[in-house]
Amino acid sequence: MKNFLDDNFCLQNQTAQQLYHQHAEGLPIIDYHCHLDPKLIAEDYQFDNLGEIWLSGDHYKWRAMRTNGIEERFCTGEETSDWEKFEKWAETVPYTMRNPLYHWTHLELKTAFGVTKLLRPETAREIYDECTAKLRTKEFSARGLMRHYKVENVCTTDDPVDTLEHHISLKNEGFEIKVLPTWRPDKAMAVENPQLFRAYVEKLSEVSGVNILKFNDFISALRQRHDFFASVGCRLSDHGIEEFYAEDFTENEINNIFNKVFGTQELTLAEIVKFKSAMMYQMAILDWEKNWTQQFHYGVIRNNNTRFFRKVGADKGFDSIGDFTVAKTMAKFFDRLDNENKLTKTIIYNLNPRDNDLIATMIGNFQDGSIAGKMQFGSGWWFLDQKTGMEAQMNSLSNLGLLSRFVGMLTDSRSFLSYPRHEYFRRILCNLIGTDVENGLLPSAELNFLGKMVEGISYYNAKNFFNF
Amino acid sequence: MKNFLDDNFCLQNQTAQQLYHQHAEGLPIIDYHCHLDPKLIAEDYQFDNLGEIWLSGDHYKWRAMRTNGIEERFCTGEETSDWEKFEKWAETVPYTMRNPLYHWTHLELKTAFGVTKLLRPETAREIYDECTAKLRTKEFSARGLMRHYKVENVCTTDDPVDTLEHHISLKNEGFEIKVLPTWRPDKAMAVENPQLFRAYVEKLSEVSGVNILKFNDFISALRQRHDFFASVGCRLSDHGIEEFYAEDFTENEINNIFNKVFGTQELTLAEIVKFKSAMMYQMAILDWEKNWTQQFHYGVIRNNNTRFFRKVGADKGFDSIGDFTVAKTMAKFFDRLDNENKLTKTIIYNLNPRDNDLIATMIGNFQDGSIAGKMQFGSGWWFLDQKTGMEAQMNSLSNLGLLSRFVGMLTDSRSFLSYPRHEYFRRILCNLIGTDVENGLLPSAELNFLGKMVEGISYYNAKNFFNF
Amino acid sequence: MKNFLDDNFCLQNQTAQQLYHQHAEGLPIIDYHCHLDPKLIAEDYQFDNLGEIWLSGDHYKWRAMRTNGIEERFCTGEETSDWEKFEKWAETVPYTMRNPLYHWTHLELKTAFGVTKLLRPETAREIYDECTAKLRTKEFSARGLMRHYKVENVCTTDDPVDTLEHHISLKNEGFEIKVLPTWRPDKAMAVENPQLFRAYVEKLSEVSGVNILKFNDFISALRQRHDFFASVGCRLSDHGIEEFYAEDFTENEINNIFNKVFGTQELTLAEIVKFKSAMMYQMAILDWEKNWTQQFHYGVIRNNNTRFFRKVGADKGFDSIGDFTVAKTMAKFFDRLDNENKLTKTIIYNLNPRDNDLIATMIGNFQDGSIAGKMQFGSGWWFLDQKTGMEAQMNSLSNLGLLSRFVGMLTDSRSFLSYPRHEYFRRILCNLIGTDVENGLLPSAELNFLGKMVEGISYYNAKNFFNF
Repeated sequence: MKNFLDDNFCLQNQTAQQLYHQHAEGLPIIDYHCHLDPKLIAEDYQFDNLGEIWLSGDHYKWRAMRTNGIEERFCTGEETSDWEKFEKWAETVPYTMRNPLYHWTHLELKTAFGVTKLLRPETAREIYDECTAKLRTKEFSARGLMRHYKVENVCTTDDPVDTLEHHISLKNEGFEIKVLPTWRPDKAMAVENPQLFRAYVEKLSEVSGVNILKFNDFISALRQRHDFFASVGCRLSDHGIEEFYAEDFTENEINNIFNKVFGTQELTLAEIVKFKSAMMYQMAILDWEKNWTQQFHYGVIRNNNTRFFRKVGADKGFDSIGDFTVAKTMAKFFDRLDNENKLTKTIIYNLNPRDNDLIATMIGNFQDGSIAGKMQFGSGWWFLDQKTGMEAQMNSLSNLGLLSRFVGMLTDSRSFLSYPRHEYFRRILCNLIGTDVENGLLPSAELNFLGKMVEGISYYNAKNFFNF
Repeated sequence: MKNFLDDNFCLQNQTAQQLYHQHAEGLPIIDYHCHLDPKLIAEDYQFDNLGEIWLSGDHYKWRAMRTNGIEERFCTGEETSDWEKFEKWAETVPYTMRNPLYHWTHLELKTAFGVTKLLRPETAREIYDECTAKLRTKEFSARGLMRHYKVENVCTTDDPVDTLEHHISLKNEGFEIKVLPTWRPDKAMAVENPQLFRAYVEKLSEVSGVNILKFNDFISALRQRHDFFASVGCRLSDHGIEEFYAEDFTENEINNIFNKVFGTQELTLAEIVKFKSAMMYQMAILDWEKNWTQQFHYGVIRNNNTRFFRKVGADKGFDSIGDFTVAKTMAKFFDRLDNENKLTKTIIYNLNPRDNDLIATMIGNFQDGSIAGKMQFGSGWWFLDQKTGMEAQMNSLSNLGLLSRFVGMLTDSRSFLSYPRHEYFRRILCNLIGTDVENGLLPSAELNFLGKMVEGISYYNAKNFFNF
Repeated sequence: MKNFLDDNFCLQNQTAQQLYHQHAEGLPIIDYHCHLDPKLIAEDYQFDNLGEIWLSGDHYKWRAMRTNGIEERFCTGEETSDWEKFEKWAETVPYTMRNPLYHWTHLELKTAFGVTKLLRPETAREIYDECTAKLRTKEFSARGLMRHYKVENVCTTDDPVDTLEHHISLKNEGFEIKVLPTWRPDKAMAVENPQLFRAYVEKLSEVSGVNILKFNDFISALRQRHDFFASVGCRLSDHGIEEFYAEDFTENEINNIFNKVFGTQELTLAEIVKFKSAMMYQMAILDWEKNWTQQFHYGVIRNNNTRFFRKVGADKGFDSIGDFTVAKTMAKFFDRLDNENKLTKTIIYNLNPRDNDLIATMIGNFQDGSIAGKMQFGSGWWFLDQKTGMEAQMNSLSNLGLLSRFVGMLTDSRSFLSYPRHEYFRRILCNLIGTDVENGLLPSAELNFLGKMVEGISYYNAKNFFNF
């Protein structure tokens, strides 16, 4: 029987262990997509206690707690103390066995704090106290944690109207870990809510200094911000979309839709989709001009619980997996760009794993030989960011594309404690490859190449791909 | 090499074996969803022979026989003797290897009759004779079999207009196994067939004593029956639906649609869907008022073979897996109820396994902390009620929710010999957990908790959840 | 650790090895669906070099090369020498580890040429030279390779207007391997492109000698060709379709649509679908009349890359997996035929593995007991023709139907070197069954039956099914 979470965690055989320890374990981390708050890095935030760092923003944990019959005040309650929340979380932890939270929790305890005790009600207090004490030391500040995990580079997620002041100050200050912004223009596409959209356009006009009277002005203002993002080191964009949009449109149509938003009439669904199609195209062109990598996260249905949305707002654990039909539209979207020779490097992330094979073959349509792995199938996202999900993504990519060219893992996280997910990923990767070798499905004579491949997927592929 | 169907069947390692034998094997059965005929229990039916109990109502077996090139008269033929049918079944059995029928067949032979011979043409006669002789003893009556399998509770599936006379007589008689009805109002929603619907309304009016002139009367009559079901011990409802329905509707619209059914005009598809939406909502409210658990079985396409439907009727093995788009509608349906604080405990069963992850995340949207595991992802249903299907369901639930809070298995069966499916399920469950422990993915230090978890999923979770 | 690609490749335990070596290894090959050019067989084509036979027509390899950053001229370039292409392919091979190409490549090197060296840049030249030398010997001609792999029968894929001259000459000549045509009337359905369709009708009129003035003439001409195909030994049809089409239609409607194609007006989408529905039905009737087996390959989206389509044309590696909704239409299509007692033997191949369980249950709707395995779930197709894909298909078929009645593998290939895919398939099959036996999920006492089952799926089921 293997021991839980020992040095060979997830590594079920010797080749897997060898690959991991010799080729993956020591490499730095490039976290090219996350949701860290750059302010916390800029001010080198010091967390007060384990409850705060773990429970103040983690909808995964809240969801598990609610499922376990824990009242909302212990999840998002503003009146509830961090310890009280933590106590309820500790009560829930054993009930999460087989859920990734159980692994994440103990990986974080072990790799950040050196705590190898299992979290349960009986150990809650001592673990809380030990970790809290450590968190209050300099070594465990926001930057301390990043250094501890050998982070080389993070890309946050930022709105085009953002000042990027913290990114700039970190750069000026010479912080040795690159903290770069990512261009996420979701609000610039959200024409389905005219009121918010108009406010957004106004804000954009303000920060860009462009007077926005028509659609072209809107794009000019965005381009101005895009240039600004580039100047701060941005190399990726990201789009959170339900579906892909690739309707045909004319400049005239888009102008009219844009103008209509500022009038009194409501947009039709067809107009909304046309507008989003135009925006997806325009944004893709900007990225192509700068040789950025564009990311698409698609397929979530959001804010499904109105009662809790009223109470606690968005992004609190009430989103789930959608079942959109995407193949033809996605193909059309990329083809339009490719046909004009304007398709930049791309990563597609799906939320419904039933699309894994679809995506793994879709990217093949637009691999044009110009760059190895130009089109990427993104690592298991959100709900799929667990052992089964990551294995399924890598198996599809292996069977239908080239695993060797994969740019690998990212945390997609709001937490400074999520870096061990890279370790988790690397272990799972090495286990897949090692098991194939042990089973005679890959040649042990190529162990050297496989070691390089592991290094590539863990670190070097991303390093070479993004031009940070 | 492991022996087929020995004490450690499906239990591939020691931890799995220990979990099963110490924590699951001895527990009683709560079969909270089945299709047993309560009349057979009330009269303590005695089966005449193995052919009858196995082949007179089992569309799984007929389907396999037809696939094996067996003529219809040996499946559903009324002129064919039970022995002749059995002989053809025995001929087919070896051809079912790797199909769950092969496991079910031999599990039933072993656990009900103590027969460990493999069924094949050469053993058909002796197995038939031995089992038939036993079936004719009192110990093997309908009730005898239920006692043999330590059944504590069954929930049958019943129409609102049913008299529930057998449930009542069993209750009055003091039969030690609880036989409770389940509220299944499918016919009350089937407005797409106006003639049958009108007849149904008439019947409902009769049994409820409510004069049904308009939609509200219809609901009143149903509520009267709902109360009656409750008085007989009903604690669950069930809905067999292709898709979820959650169109917006007004009282006025529904009244008009209801009236239109009694006129000469045909309903439009939009009207049918609106009506079903209203009914789903109304039925959900009734269940919430009584704190029942509502079940939804969705995604089958039925009666796909017209030729055989003419010959042998419905439910004879000509249904299959559909591919409906469901996420947004399902979310809307539950949100409407939840938003009014009227969402009761719920179990969702999908037929297409491509929706497993969708459902496992959908339930998370409506876990509100009020009850542990309030929203349930139902165990592998119909075609998915096999090792792969159950493992996939439990893995999705584990990865995306809390396996620990799962209410577990049900037979969904018409047969008094299907109880070993609970054993099958428990073995598969213990094997999943035990294998994780052996692989160091779960801590052996938590074996005690895992044992309790197994007990919960096998028995106690259901016991605590349903308030029988 | 198992050795790569040794005698027990893919066979992870002793029972699997025994099943393969005793029951599968020695059997001949019936390749009932491929895309070989019959001309090459008729003239007993001699390949010039390893680059030609491997790279002149293989879009799988091109796709992998493009993904690996290889320029197009090394894929489809007409100016580039075979050696230069091969060199780039050899450079790519190590990067394909975990992709089926890695297995296929080395299986082909080993089983055709006796080369057990791994292909990589360092070995490229010597492997190229050794294999090229062999390819220039008589033993390695088109026919030589077929004999080497014990091919008994191949079915090519042919258009109704094809002269079948090569099939006829091979027959007349008495070539000991049966080379039969397959009826693939895709162009006769492609009414969405009126210009090509009209040209096709003209060509059909010419070869059939039928004057085509109306739809019935069109069908008569096709029937004439169908008879001709039958006379040359054709026993299967094949349809490459995005989706199934089963709209209701009247003779009158179809006549009008047919006439409209010859006019100036464009067909509506509804008309196109109606026409395809009528054609699918008519073609199915022809097949039923002759007791042929009809095949449906559905679910691909084609020619997704316009830029490369302009440059290099169709079938060059720019197709991918679609996500069509198919269940109800497919059921309706088969039901219409079955209801008239005119449903012939059928094989359905899906491209999106998310439909595996849907298809495995769909076929059950139309198993009528007339022939064992009348309705077949086709082996993993195109992108799914790899270990994971074949295992998934066989597991779905096992769980939801009868694996024992499966007609098994086909290459679907353009290459004379693809026959080891049958070996690959048989190994994977034996491993699945053997592993079940070892795990106590199948009885070792039935090893004899299981051996026969392996023989059936490898060879005899197809032999008995198709009436060649």
